Amino acid sequence: MTDDAISYPTPGQPVGAWLDELGSAAPAPGGGAVAAMSTATAAALVEMVGNLTVGRAAYADHEEQVTAVRDAAHGLRQRALEQLDEDATAFRALMTAYRLPRQAGQEQAARQAAIQAATQRAAAVPLEVAATAAEVIELAGQLPGRSNPNVLSDVGVAAVTAAAAIEAAAVNVDVNLASLADTEVKAALTAELDRHLAVAAQGRQLAARVRDQVAR
Amino acid sequence: MTDDAISYPTPGQPVGAWLDELGSAAPAPGGGAVAAMSTATAAALVEMVGNLTVGRAAYADHEEQVTAVRDAAHGLRQRALEQLDEDATAFRALMTAYRLPRQAGQEQAARQAAIQAATQRAAAVPLEVAATAAEVIELAGQLPGRSNPNVLSDVGVAAVTAAAAIEAAAVNVDVNLASLADTEVKAALTAELDRHLAVAAQGRQLAARVRDQVAR
Repeated sequence: MTDDAISYPTPGQPVGAWLDELGSAAPAPGGGAVAAMSTATAAALVEMVGNLTVGRAAYADHEEQVTAVRDAAHGLRQRALEQLDEDATAFRALMTAYRLPRQAGQEQAARQAAIQAATQRAAAVPLEVAATAAEVIELAGQLPGRSNPNVLSDVGVAAVTAAAAIEAAAVNVDVNLASLADTEVKAALTAELDRHLAVAAQGRQLAARVRDQVAR
Repeated sequence: MTDDAISYPTPGQPVGAWLDELGSAAPAPGGGAVAAMSTATAAALVEMVGNLTVGRAAYADHEEQVTAVRDAAHGLRQRALEQLDEDATAFRALMTAYRLPRQAGQEQAARQAAIQAATQRAAAVPLEVAATAAEVIELAGQLPGRSNPNVLSDVGVAAVTAAAAIEAAAVNVDVNLASLADTEVKAALTAELDRHLAVAAQGRQLAARVRDQVAR
């Protein structure tokens, strides 16, 4: 695989071709891209619920709030798609750092510094994906009782999908933190990840409440 | 929205356009499509891990098993994409049934029968998606210790994503079972769903084990 092979414009790519690339021996796109894609689909579902609520007389009391939720979800969807490509960029930079010459003493130090910087970035990107997914859950949580009840199930699906995006991102944060030497940065990133994982748990609780409600 | 608007060839559609449709006021694609898409992405990740393992001397001992896992995952990815479109078809049939004339007594009975049949199908499709996702988890579970450890994190992401697909499908099963009159069919479908949800819990445990391992 060449470096160029993992730089692609995801939104324009057909769904089937994206999945083909995901399944191929190219290590990117991989788990990081899946976390970002799950975030984008969850955000789109929140948007859909907003679009099926806004402008209908029955939900006029919550029009302003649901409009804000819908528009914010649209922004998060775009951000998740950007993060999908940032994940590939971070991966490419990490591979480039590992390929630096390792012979001489000075080169060795430069290589280690480059690897550490690229590793920190490779941990930061999934953390940013997790932050986006956490925002999607926060938005989804505003909908029950305010949005069109005919699509309440979609709020549940959005919540559980965004929660999985956070948990998927956590795996990718962990794998990069394992090779990060700076213990202070490591502790800060771990603390941030734990905050997002707490929101993931809330998302799963929201989905459980939705299941209870739709089953009535 | 016309019925034709929800019949589309998903794999050929650009990723961005698919997300646009998901986010739009059209109720399909919706949560059912997201469950199927999560299943397809999880299956593709299992394939990727297989493709980065098969043919490498270091993992020759497990070549046969990992090849079988990879090939089965490829089949599940294709099945999930078919189910994505079956979800739209089932939704379309349900909408058609609800639009049948409701005036005369005989028409009323025919309409009710059509709605019940379409509702059962609308519950059956997400159940089939959950079954596919459960198979993805079973395949992912065969990989740790046998596949390329450099992409162990992707096994974790696959497991958590397939688990979310099952939990998302559960919301869609529940919402349809709520309006299904046949208590025997309802009990059978619920029992099947519970089996898949148990596999989802196993998938989340697998992901937790992967996180432990990659963090070392």
